[in-house]
Amino acid sequence: MHRLISRAEAKPPFFVGIDLGGTSVKLGVVDDHGRTLLRFSIPTETKKGPEDASRRMGLAVHRAIEEAGLECSAIAGVGLGSAGPMDIPGGKLRETANLPGWNWFPLRDRVAHHCGMPVIFTNDAAAAAYGEFWVGSGQKYDSMTLLTLGTGIGCGIIIDGYNLIGENSYGAESGHITINSADDARMCGCGRTGHLEAYASATAVTKITREALDGGRASSLTAQIAHGTHLSPKLVAQEAEAGDPLSMEIVLGTARHLGVGIVSIMHTIATECVLLGGAMTFGGSKSPLGRQFLAGVQEEVRRRAVGRLAERTTIDFASLGGDAGYLGAAGTARAECRTR
Amino acid sequence: MHRLISRAEAKPPFFVGIDLGGTSVKLGVVDDHGRTLLRFSIPTETKKGPEDASRRMGLAVHRAIEEAGLECSAIAGVGLGSAGPMDIPGGKLRETANLPGWNWFPLRDRVAHHCGMPVIFTNDAAAAAYGEFWVGSGQKYDSMTLLTLGTGIGCGIIIDGYNLIGENSYGAESGHITINSADDARMCGCGRTGHLEAYASATAVTKITREALDGGRASSLTAQIAHGTHLSPKLVAQEAEAGDPLSMEIVLGTARHLGVGIVSIMHTIATECVLLGGAMTFGGSKSPLGRQFLAGVQEEVRRRAVGRLAERTTIDFASLGGDAGYLGAAGTARAECRTR
Repeated sequence: MHRLISRAEAKPPFFVGIDLGGTSVKLGVVDDHGRTLLRFSIPTETKKGPEDASRRMGLAVHRAIEEAGLECSAIAGVGLGSAGPMDIPGGKLRETANLPGWNWFPLRDRVAHHCGMPVIFTNDAAAAAYGEFWVGSGQKYDSMTLLTLGTGIGCGIIIDGYNLIGENSYGAESGHITINSADDARMCGCGRTGHLEAYASATAVTKITREALDGGRASSLTAQIAHGTHLSPKLVAQEAEAGDPLSMEIVLGTARHLGVGIVSIMHTIATECVLLGGAMTFGGSKSPLGRQFLAGVQEEVRRRAVGRLAERTTIDFASLGGDAGYLGAAGTARAECRTR
Repeated sequence: MHRLISRAEAKPPFFVGIDLGGTSVKLGVVDDHGRTLLRFSIPTETKKGPEDASRRMGLAVHRAIEEAGLECSAIAGVGLGSAGPMDIPGGKLRETANLPGWNWFPLRDRVAHHCGMPVIFTNDAAAAAYGEFWVGSGQKYDSMTLLTLGTGIGCGIIIDGYNLIGENSYGAESGHITINSADDARMCGCGRTGHLEAYASATAVTKITREALDGGRASSLTAQIAHGTHLSPKLVAQEAEAGDPLSMEIVLGTARHLGVGIVSIMHTIATECVLLGGAMTFGGSKSPLGRQFLAGVQEEVRRRAVGRLAERTTIDFASLGGDAGYLGAAGTARAECRTR
């Protein structure tokens, strides 16, 4: 987790970052160096509708500024990263799976109305990538890619400091890169086959493990599940750490699949660095299993990428965890203010 | 081919574009609207070394300006697109397969010296993409991708008007996107397996056809080859047009492979448009077979891309042919002049 700093340490101007997800809204007050003075979450309460949520986000922004010991006049910008898809120039959501019933809501302007301040609008994956780029593992690079491994696979791409938003504000959709073009390739959540997300998301890992167990593979997972533990990548990680061969095979298989997808990203945009973030990193940089997972991804990339890209592209873990979104939203607002 | 205009029609300022390849150097004098006043080629004569070629390029630039009826003072910029890899900011070539023995030569500054004018340096794939973006099939888009299908597969990517050069000036290497991750995937020229170039370049098409014939597949190609015709994608196109089922299968198989690769590009950068250029387009837009090939690519893209990208991304032929390189080099010089 990103360390908090005191008001005395902080360097003005200040920014508020908002990370709007399907379950919760994270907010942070951030200084000009991307350091957090204060952060908290409020529930999204999707069902109450977007106007109610906009109102509560406006109130939360004011509460955050006050609790950080600041005046509104000290805030140079408010950034809002939302689950997409959206129309960024228009400030509107589109048909959003994560925010059901919020379609076509003019989110940017309504939040701005309730804040009493202009709001810079972006998508959550692009915001998280910008957070890592500004103050996380991507700091030393001009170009970087963040893959967020969770229920699905999100992707944000920065090219020479420019956040790739793409046509229709859809941003990078690298979760849907084809890694297997065979006729029997796995089905993705999007209804197409062979996509990265169908092999290396939490959903995919659970499904692939379930199929192996149903197919009669011996594993310590079976006993855990019989004792009532829910099958998840976390359980797979736990059993892999305890020496279960099937669980380890699943972890390293996930690494290989990711490696294939990352190579296609590298060959398209010659990114300097690919970061892995999100909940499904098998423990991440702090765990031996996480590091083994990362080494597996790196090995597959070296095996498949053309030499000079294989040698020079860093593959690493993201470092900001759940803070990347609001930090990146704040950073996007800051970048926008500096451009003007 | 791009139409020539007269001096009277032309709108100043003027630019010279140079497209340096392993065999020949194409030059063009271009007006502010990207229309060509004059163009010609000189041999590269790689073996005489880069200093000699730089000198001859300098002479050719002066000859072109003179033959176009212009003074040097009317030229606002000279752009040089070269086969890579290279160090664009440094103006140097790197270890170049297409220009053997030219490694680490300070090409930009030596050509500038012999021209007596500053030279804007870029790579040939990026230049060709910029040409299509400026005055070719990519004109109406803000973001586009050009795949050049030839011996290998080149790629140039424009994102919101910005030409993607990437870390170490390698630009897009989408020819090396993995389209088949299976253990028995085809070997690419780069020594790795499963890359797009191993399935959809001219080299690959010839190899795949040869294997089918060697495997005993009946085809009218056999008789053509027995009569001394060299097996090539052009011959495959000819026989496909004449109704040979194997040849048609190869053409449509190439389209499917390309579709898989294009989907990974689309999902990474949300490009508005993907253009197919180069020598191996099975006749391109002017031939029924070429249009069938394009329809095959489009169908595979629709089958594999997430809905909104599948619907909104244009897949089409490039329109500038061999002129794309010098036009794009001239356009890159123009863009650079306008930024300053």
